[in-house]
Amino acid sequence: MLTAIIVAGGSSRRMGFDKTFALLGDKPVIAHSAAAFQSAENVADIIVVGRQDCLEQLRETLTPAAFGKLRAFVAGGAQRQDSVAAGLKQLSPAAEFIAVHDAARPLVTPSAIERVYAAAREHGAASLAAPVVDTLKRADETRLVTGSVDREGVYAMQTPQIFSRELLMNAYGRVAASNGAITDEVSAVEALGHKVVLVPNDDFNFKITFAGDLELARLVLAQRQQSATH
Amino acid sequence: MLTAIIVAGGSSRRMGFDKTFALLGDKPVIAHSAAAFQSAENVADIIVVGRQDCLEQLRETLTPAAFGKLRAFVAGGAQRQDSVAAGLKQLSPAAEFIAVHDAARPLVTPSAIERVYAAAREHGAASLAAPVVDTLKRADETRLVTGSVDREGVYAMQTPQIFSRELLMNAYGRVAASNGAITDEVSAVEALGHKVVLVPNDDFNFKITFAGDLELARLVLAQRQQSATH
Repeated sequence: MLTAIIVAGGSSRRMGFDKTFALLGDKPVIAHSAAAFQSAENVADIIVVGRQDCLEQLRETLTPAAFGKLRAFVAGGAQRQDSVAAGLKQLSPAAEFIAVHDAARPLVTPSAIERVYAAAREHGAASLAAPVVDTLKRADETRLVTGSVDREGVYAMQTPQIFSRELLMNAYGRVAASNGAITDEVSAVEALGHKVVLVPNDDFNFKITFAGDLELARLVLAQRQQSATH
Repeated sequence: MLTAIIVAGGSSRRMGFDKTFALLGDKPVIAHSAAAFQSAENVADIIVVGRQDCLEQLRETLTPAAFGKLRAFVAGGAQRQDSVAAGLKQLSPAAEFIAVHDAARPLVTPSAIERVYAAAREHGAASLAAPVVDTLKRADETRLVTGSVDREGVYAMQTPQIFSRELLMNAYGRVAASNGAITDEVSAVEALGHKVVLVPNDDFNFKITFAGDLELARLVLAQRQQSATH
């Protein structure tokens, strides 16, 4: 069975307001993310990790009536990896695969989740990703270009990232033992020498980072609803 | 004075139809791109480069009545650099700065053009760009992750890219002399040892690459019109 860990931790300094609870159409950002996992057939249960001072609001937003798969609300840590580790402590003994998802990606669809899960069952580790189409450059703090980045084979990582339980637990065990910091679960699994396969996304799944992203996400959702009713 | 070279060359193999003339709201993609430069106060004239077999359609789409700044329609070459070089041959003697723009970025705004122009006047060379916010990974042909790409200071290049005429002519002269290929004008100018400054974009300006991009661009335009009439 597949357990989803949705990570809502982290303040939204870049936007100046809390993107987790920002209203997107008829419900907050976090409720869209949770709804995708609630609807995905293969997801058995959902663990939501949030800041300690947001847990009450998370409970009020994600009610058992609407989100029957919710297993637990957990307080996250200072770093993303601490939040995921806190979520891992709440796994059911039956959990075989773990999907880690950023709450700030509310446009994820059940079908994308199922495709990543299928790849994870085959390879042990899989991540949703989008090929980079723009030319990439590196710049210094004053925004003067200092060089190029070869974009051949470069993908922008998205979530969910899905791993076998054993692989993710080993990766986190190693991180804890080394006191190291990781940027994402893919890096932690790579550090074990295990290959991660990318699943190209064919739909919008950007992370709400700036205020304009929220506006764009509203447009995408409105368009999807329109398509669904035609 | 500032001359815009809008490059519409290149077939749209990825989309399976010609993105240059794809309808976006009330007009084709190329007409949106041209309209932004037509409206930008500092743009004196516009040169449009397109495939030989599209020149007639370009002339019908971009009429002198609606686009008074149009200076010439030019047949492009096999590579992007050949197309830009063809455009450069049509410059007015008065042109001091050149803006190179992908026709497939129809969401560019007059204000973004003006901001890049201001930076180009200060530094000689400037490009619109967006900071990369996602984690980047490199993968092989089978989409297995082979390593990370440090995203610190990495920007995705957009257009317009604006250069002093002298700098761009020197860069292209060097490219022609060496028979080399360049991926974009920024690289050609960098090869001269001249620094290029990036201007972060605060609005949508993605390149129409996949069919979904066209749909998203329609949403952005609809939203902009709605905001404008409120």
